Amino acid sequence: MTIKVYGTKESTCSQRVYLALHEKEICDYHIVHVDLLKGEHKRPEFLKIQPFAKIPVYQDEEVTIFESRAIVRYIAEKFKDKGTTTLYGRNLKEKGLVEQWVEVESQNYNPPVDVIVHEEYFNPKYWGATKPNEQVVQENVSKLEKVLDVYEAHLSKNKYLAGDFYSIADLVHIPYTYFLIKYTTKGHVITSRKHVKAWFDDISARKSWQKIAKEYINES
Amino acid sequence: MTIKVYGTKESTCSQRVYLALHEKEICDYHIVHVDLLKGEHKRPEFLKIQPFAKIPVYQDEEVTIFESRAIVRYIAEKFKDKGTTTLYGRNLKEKGLVEQWVEVESQNYNPPVDVIVHEEYFNPKYWGATKPNEQVVQENVSKLEKVLDVYEAHLSKNKYLAGDFYSIADLVHIPYTYFLIKYTTKGHVITSRKHVKAWFDDISARKSWQKIAKEYINES
Ligand SMILES: N[C@@H](CCC(=O)N[C@@H](CS)C(=O)NCC(=O)O)C(=O)O
Ligand SMILES: N[C@@H](CCC(=O)N[C@@H](CS)C(=O)NCC(=O)O)C(=O)O
Repeated sequence: MTIKVYGTKESTCSQRVYLALHEKEICDYHIVHVDLLKGEHKRPEFLKIQPFAKIPVYQDEEVTIFESRAIVRYIAEKFKDKGTTTLYGRNLKEKGLVEQWVEVESQNYNPPVDVIVHEEYFNPKYWGATKPNEQVVQENVSKLEKVLDVYEAHLSKNKYLAGDFYSIADLVHIPYTYFLIKYTTKGHVITSRKHVKAWFDDISARKSWQKIAKEYINES
Repeated sequence: MTIKVYGTKESTCSQRVYLALHEKEICDYHIVHVDLLKGEHKRPEFLKIQPFAKIPVYQDEEVTIFESRAIVRYIAEKFKDKGTTTLYGRNLKEKGLVEQWVEVESQNYNPPVDVIVHEEYFNPKYWGATKPNEQVVQENVSKLEKVLDVYEAHLSKNKYLAGDFYSIADLVHIPYTYFLIKYTTKGHVITSRKHVKAWFDDISARKSWQKIAKEYINES
């Protein structure tokens, strides 16, 4: 099976997909580099596979799928019995809770984190911004702290978001949270919360993420 | 099986859940009314089942789940063989495409529609707003039109979002789109696009939605 991921190594959304593949011990996928700075994601050939002009896109012999969380779900289901087998829980009930927390990430957690990481890191680095809009950053830090207070209480009673097993609900949080801690001034929202910090230390120490952090986010 | 949905009849997010239950021919669920105007969603008893203080919440003998799209997925899977059996597609490939389009709704489509419907309808009706912020409405109409241009092209070649079958990808769009057309001045973004209009006419004519529109959104 040849698997292609259209994306870039440093794209946080694409990293969700690489991470799911590594958890499934699929390491021989091929990254088709899409140069965002050159606008390659807006070219007609690319719009044929992703009409909204975004990376990542996943492709194997059977399907072409975009939207990182959809791809991650597809990988968890398709390679159910490979590698980490709890990615979607071990039964219907657990799967329901996994879906719940993937949605919490997408609806509540990621929107403010995305803004902070773009304001402080990606926009200055790639898109010519001179400095972050402090008011926008602060508003989003406040939103995020409210969300994280719920996580803190929840993670004081549960090792992982959906229960006592690692799942795609945890996985989808990793790339953006890593960038938040490493490349912005707001990482304390995570590291100052005991149970959130312990959870993130645990899930980001997994071999899957260590490999991506090392090989794709140039730690050298 | 006793199924409870904590919500309100007029809540668009809750309606996604009612709709999924009706597609599965489960009509004897019980709505536990949560009065948002009285702040019942912020009371300690409710926060125990939904710590982010939002409706809907689904409950059966086995699980308590929040987030409308997570609940809809759970219903599609749990009652796989009941009622409409294509809600999650008929195989893994179709399921991947269903997930893709549920994500498109959640990431691209719903955010602008939500703002327009709140600005023009819910905020004046329930939350004391005197008039919509026209600039905010206009910005979101522009965003939405870009998204709908992609839908128009896609639906000119596909009867439903994920292919030739009705699925939860279509379903999750219905409540907000209905409110957009019926209760705001911006419904033309849907009705002026031939294939989008035909698609929405089709999916909203289903018995499931007709029942909700009639019984819950007081058509009388
Ligand atoms: N909801 C999408 C978001 C994808 C997304 O925003 N990708 C970024 C890179 S992380 C991108 O393509 N940006 C280019 C652009 O928006 O022009 C997903 O999760 O896949
Ligand atoms: N992402 C959530 C959104 C839920 C949501 O925003 N619910 C609204 C009613 S449609 C609500 O509870 N509003 C009360 C509030 O935000 O205070 C879902 O899809 O279930």
